[in-house]
Amino acid sequence: MENGNLNHGGVDKASKTITIKGILGLLMENIDESDKRRVISLGIGDPTVYSCFHLPKVAEYAVVDALQSENFNGYAPTVGLPQTRRAIAEYLSRDLPYKLSSDDVFITSGCTQAIDVALAMVGCPGANILLPRPGFPIYELCAAFRNVEVRHFDLLPEKGWEVDLHAVDALADQNTVAMVVINPGNPCGNVYSYQHLEKIAETAKKLKILVIADEVYGHLAFGCNPFVPMGVFGSIVPVLTLGSLSKRWIVPGWRLGWLVITDPCGMFRKPKMVERVKKYFDILGGPATFIQAAVPRILEQTQEVFFKKTNNLLKQTSEICCERIKEIHCITCPHRPEGSMAVMVKLNLSLLEDISNDIDFCMKLAKEESVIILPGTAVGLKNCLRITFAVDPASLEEAMKRVKSFSQRHAKANSTTTTTTTTMDIPTLI
Amino acid sequence: MENGNLNHGGVDKASKTITIKGILGLLMENIDESDKRRVISLGIGDPTVYSCFHLPKVAEYAVVDALQSENFNGYAPTVGLPQTRRAIAEYLSRDLPYKLSSDDVFITSGCTQAIDVALAMVGCPGANILLPRPGFPIYELCAAFRNVEVRHFDLLPEKGWEVDLHAVDALADQNTVAMVVINPGNPCGNVYSYQHLEKIAETAKKLKILVIADEVYGHLAFGCNPFVPMGVFGSIVPVLTLGSLSKRWIVPGWRLGWLVITDPCGMFRKPKMVERVKKYFDILGGPATFIQAAVPRILEQTQEVFFKKTNNLLKQTSEICCERIKEIHCITCPHRPEGSMAVMVKLNLSLLEDISNDIDFCMKLAKEESVIILPGTAVGLKNCLRITFAVDPASLEEAMKRVKSFSQRHAKANSTTTTTTTTMDIPTLI
Repeated sequence: MENGNLNHGGVDKASKTITIKGILGLLMENIDESDKRRVISLGIGDPTVYSCFHLPKVAEYAVVDALQSENFNGYAPTVGLPQTRRAIAEYLSRDLPYKLSSDDVFITSGCTQAIDVALAMVGCPGANILLPRPGFPIYELCAAFRNVEVRHFDLLPEKGWEVDLHAVDALADQNTVAMVVINPGNPCGNVYSYQHLEKIAETAKKLKILVIADEVYGHLAFGCNPFVPMGVFGSIVPVLTLGSLSKRWIVPGWRLGWLVITDPCGMFRKPKMVERVKKYFDILGGPATFIQAAVPRILEQTQEVFFKKTNNLLKQTSEICCERIKEIHCITCPHRPEGSMAVMVKLNLSLLEDISNDIDFCMKLAKEESVIILPGTAVGLKNCLRITFAVDPASLEEAMKRVKSFSQRHAKANSTTTTTTTTMDIPTLI
Repeated sequence: MENGNLNHGGVDKASKTITIKGILGLLMENIDESDKRRVISLGIGDPTVYSCFHLPKVAEYAVVDALQSENFNGYAPTVGLPQTRRAIAEYLSRDLPYKLSSDDVFITSGCTQAIDVALAMVGCPGANILLPRPGFPIYELCAAFRNVEVRHFDLLPEKGWEVDLHAVDALADQNTVAMVVINPGNPCGNVYSYQHLEKIAETAKKLKILVIADEVYGHLAFGCNPFVPMGVFGSIVPVLTLGSLSKRWIVPGWRLGWLVITDPCGMFRKPKMVERVKKYFDILGGPATFIQAAVPRILEQTQEVFFKKTNNLLKQTSEICCERIKEIHCITCPHRPEGSMAVMVKLNLSLLEDISNDIDFCMKLAKEESVIILPGTAVGLKNCLRITFAVDPASLEEAMKRVKSFSQRHAKANSTTTTTTTTMDIPTLI
């Protein structure tokens, strides 16, 4: 019986690909149940567990009303309800120098499905795509299942995690179809300047590749750089913009995402390609029709003050995080986060006695302190940590205190207590 | 620029694969807008547009409560919430000679995504699967995108659309991994007997292939044969059972489906395979967490009387459909529907003047009568029609009256007005 393969050539790669959820699962298994203290997770970007991060009530009302109207229990078109596509086109067009049309917008089941569709759109056997390191491992997993080759360019910590454009240049060949840019950044918390995004667009144009712009953290920017959507440069290079309600509206469980073709010059958007995309959507289960139906009202009625409150809170918790990191001798933060919900920090193993690597650090931390932090290996950078700060301030303080006490307990007897290095390990491919 | 391919080898096949939604879209475009009569669609199995088909209120309340609790706005595990998996395991176990466990159940975004996962689970390059003809074209489309070969066995109209098991035997080779059985049947409205399902299981066992049992219309049986889940024969042959809330609870837009490994002897379910399936779920966007959270209450509290009412109504409308078909000289029904929401009928073109085939019939019917019926070609049988009877009785009567008048208008001058044939055309592969 030749079954149980889940196999399209990429299966072995897929099996070996690390996932954030896989590692978090292992860490959770390592929690010591006899520890009476509550478990605090700084491991995943889901702030809904903390009451300070709270969806806007209007979003909830809009979904309840759409459901109770009983007009939206039936099938939606597989690419999404027309009014939902139109509302998202209008919402995104606010920040663009041109108008998107409904036809540019495809509704997906969260940003995860948007990633899968984007890779299915550009990937063909023999093709390769360029991914950031550190990055978001769902890209690697989708590519493995779709049999698309991946090549990694570095993000440069000393330059605010900017893209190493020389590396992009060197990696691309005639089979390269796209590069992925995650901005605001996950896992690094970077927010790219207009100028850097423009350089990315020019590089992609020169290389004749698309940009896949993962903007799931769009508008979650609280530093100096404002959030600039990659689609602003759509007339330089075609951009596939991925986004969702998940983070900005704090409803990741609603699974309402989008893939948008931001290509005002029609360089990419050809009728035949659109037909193919539509057919691919026929085999996907999209988000619930009544949630889609609520989107126009959600986008229209959510108040600016709600967004400001979220950004202020993230700014506050990111600052707590950075201050506490300074007190922990084995961890350094190469660049303060200015957006998204996470920061990448470096682990200086030479200051620790009995910790062999980042995974070992996180496993022992879970066991001894009931705190979950994601090892950098899960996002492509060994001996780093990704700390999520979308956590209520008190829990964050408590978690960082436990990390500090853990680090002190495992410190080398002769190690200094001041931070000594801000350079990163040379990243290695996972 | 090598983009816009949406290509994994199967792209050309996928582009050419007919979809129900594609054909219905073309038919809708053919509607004459100057026709003042309302459009009546007998084209798709979405009864939510008719107020007589109405979800159970408890289902709506359960979802509203789950949403308003604000405990389910976050991410669910990608394979589904534990309580949802458990509730579905218990629900399905009621009709099985053994108990399913939560671990056997994977939550999907509607049955469509369950089909995709099933094909991804069994399909590998070089593999082939056996599909019924007529059938449900999403299987062909998924197979094309996954690069899995499909081979068609016939359903036998004169035997109540039973599977031609000799054909299955003849089609299978060492690369065959599974056969698909849709019961209650779409598009034929058949409900298989215990004995026939057992024979299918024995045949699959002999051929060493899995059975993919599409039971999206599970329990929608109103004829002589009760609905028997294929999982009853899980100890003969491993069964992947696909289902959803869509049809039985009349909420197709909620996108809440499942894939269940009904394999009590563990012939298929190996730890490595389960790991791979879980990883595949990591790249899928599942259904909304709060809808998942409502499932235990929905399964527990929906009253038997609700299900009876639906089946009685479907029995009534299927009878209206069959009676009216008898009055239409060019259409014959080889087997009265006993389940699901649709019936396959034969079109006798020799009795019609200026109709070249089933698609031509349906296109002209849409234009002249504002009635949408699916041409058999869309489900693999040329010169047949699939008529959906999940429609309120008055609309159904009106639609069938229009089909009758259309048929009379297009009748050959010398054709008899009685039905003359009940044999089917030899099916041809689309």
